[in-house]
Amino acid sequence: MKFIHTADWHLGKLVHGIYMTTQQREVLQQFVKLVEEERPDAVIIAGDLYDRSVPPVEAVELLNEMLFTINVELKTPIVAISGNHDSAERLSFGASWFQHSRFYLKGGLTNDFSPVNINGVNFYLIPYAEPGIVRELLDDESIHSHEEAMKAMVGKIEKQLNPNEANVLVGHAFVLGGTTSDSERILSVGGSGCVPSDVFSPFDYTALGHLHSPDAIKHKTIRYSGSLLKYSFSEAKQRKSVSIIEMDEKGNFSLKEHSLTPSLDMREIEAFLDELLDPAFYQQQNTEDYIKVILKDEGAIVDPMGKLRKVYPNILHLERKIEAIDLRKKQSYQTVRDEKKSDLDLFTHFYEQMTSQSFSSEKREIMKNVMDKVKLEAESR
Amino acid sequence: MKFIHTADWHLGKLVHGIYMTTQQREVLQQFVKLVEEERPDAVIIAGDLYDRSVPPVEAVELLNEMLFTINVELKTPIVAISGNHDSAERLSFGASWFQHSRFYLKGGLTNDFSPVNINGVNFYLIPYAEPGIVRELLDDESIHSHEEAMKAMVGKIEKQLNPNEANVLVGHAFVLGGTTSDSERILSVGGSGCVPSDVFSPFDYTALGHLHSPDAIKHKTIRYSGSLLKYSFSEAKQRKSVSIIEMDEKGNFSLKEHSLTPSLDMREIEAFLDELLDPAFYQQQNTEDYIKVILKDEGAIVDPMGKLRKVYPNILHLERKIEAIDLRKKQSYQTVRDEKKSDLDLFTHFYEQMTSQSFSSEKREIMKNVMDKVKLEAESR
Repeated sequence: MKFIHTADWHLGKLVHGIYMTTQQREVLQQFVKLVEEERPDAVIIAGDLYDRSVPPVEAVELLNEMLFTINVELKTPIVAISGNHDSAERLSFGASWFQHSRFYLKGGLTNDFSPVNINGVNFYLIPYAEPGIVRELLDDESIHSHEEAMKAMVGKIEKQLNPNEANVLVGHAFVLGGTTSDSERILSVGGSGCVPSDVFSPFDYTALGHLHSPDAIKHKTIRYSGSLLKYSFSEAKQRKSVSIIEMDEKGNFSLKEHSLTPSLDMREIEAFLDELLDPAFYQQQNTEDYIKVILKDEGAIVDPMGKLRKVYPNILHLERKIEAIDLRKKQSYQTVRDEKKSDLDLFTHFYEQMTSQSFSSEKREIMKNVMDKVKLEAESR
Repeated sequence: MKFIHTADWHLGKLVHGIYMTTQQREVLQQFVKLVEEERPDAVIIAGDLYDRSVPPVEAVELLNEMLFTINVELKTPIVAISGNHDSAERLSFGASWFQHSRFYLKGGLTNDFSPVNINGVNFYLIPYAEPGIVRELLDDESIHSHEEAMKAMVGKIEKQLNPNEANVLVGHAFVLGGTTSDSERILSVGGSGCVPSDVFSPFDYTALGHLHSPDAIKHKTIRYSGSLLKYSFSEAKQRKSVSIIEMDEKGNFSLKEHSLTPSLDMREIEAFLDELLDPAFYQQQNTEDYIKVILKDEGAIVDPMGKLRKVYPNILHLERKIEAIDLRKKQSYQTVRDEKKSDLDLFTHFYEQMTSQSFSSEKREIMKNVMDKVKLEAESR
């Protein structure tokens, strides 16, 4: 039995103010092609189909079109759950009808933990839910964290699960130790959003969504498929792929990855402005890519964004290298404030932080004169 | 062949800040019961299923539940189009799957004007669309009004229509001469939203949505089913019903109405405050109803809304009868301002307008003294 595991499509996602719809369509078309070629017995989508509870109309149309192609035209069963970015209720509209064609969409959590069986594999669906919802649903006052919620739900499943069969959990959660990136919304402030990996031990494979890298966790049977696209610059170096799993009746499986590659990449470049604007530099790369530039130049530059955009039309973010230095020094700034220092000493410190240059004695002399003059004027009023 | 014609459910509607969801559920349950009893061959919903393009979650759940019950559990085909309050694209999600169980949902207008045939009756579906959309879709630059748009679309249908068969148009439009109420969103500022009734002459029956009264238009073959509930006080005296049509193969039909009655009515009461608060008065009626009160009292009343709410918890709107008088007098006020009048004359006029009482010579004397005193004080500064 073969299934493809994907998650975190985030349709309707805005990255630095730009809709990713065109890229998403392009990569989903690659995905549909993969389904045509691989002819899997099922496609698993582990949550965050949309980026937000009320996605833009284009995202609704894109999801409708892609799922229809996979499910009805290619006659491939789909198993999907909602993630923390989806609205469980809105996503659920029509779900009862979808089952006709073996599209199993579980938007909201229910007390029914019975599996969907597809060609001998049991898929247990746990859509994302706040611990409070699970507490109420299971009528279990002891549930306060995501860990407790997941344990309780897996406990319900274990009661009916036959360990001699092939059992797969489909969930949307943050597994302890997983590597995060900037585009995932944290599940719980203060760390109680984590679920330890041993909670999933009853399953032969746990198909997760939430973290955006396929390498987010190293575990034999627990896996994040990773997101459809790079959705933040912190993901610039991540591979993006879906996982193709072949599983036997006992739950033994082999896994291979299939890369998804949009025509425009998302990447970071660290260089001096002159380099960036030098044809010898930029002609070797796709200047249409979504780019974050880290400028190594120091000192004032007039309209660097305007200059860069002429060469890199999809530049999304510009940072100065110098800012990184500031951040490193910020800590020491606090200690300076606590000591008694002269205004001139404080300014010297400030200048050195802002420019990463030393404040020459010549400059110091000029500043001292300015300060003295200002003080005199203030006193004479 | 029997079908039920309904429209304008407006799920998610707020009336004076109150969600109508409970009432809507109640009346839809009556509707489901009617379907169970009548066993129609189809249910027709002529647009405005939702009240807005992004309806609240409760409305999405209610629509999903009711349509599932009718279509899947009661195995009744449904024909539905979007109205001007719906988002064509959002409503369309899943429509391709719904056809499996003969739920024909046409959200967005397409170039395909072929009918849905149910037990010998052809249903032609024209969801609501702006003239600009129709102009683009039909590639016909002459389309600028709703009339031109509807004529062009009906023209497309006429080319394929067999007049010897039973032909029904399902549309969402404002037919010329129709009686409006306050809860319908006008289709076009300036009156070009109207469609003359003769446009629909090729059809044996035209099942319309948009106007909220089943009596909105008097025509043998064109009919508004009316809305599910009263959605504004201008509808307080309207009957609310659905239409049950029995049609033969030639398109001859008979029609009966079936009333839908929520447990809470929406109505207006015009009375004095004392009357309204008198148990002898209010004990004869359902004080839980959604009520608009028109107070006949003149002069100041302290917190009338607070007093009334104790007896009528669902009072939604309070008007003073006196305001109506003011409106009538407003015109004459303008003429007064243009003349040269003394401050005392102006105040007299103002008093009479605000109270609808005459300003007695005694009061006039008091006011004169006050004014003189104020003037003296002002001059002495």
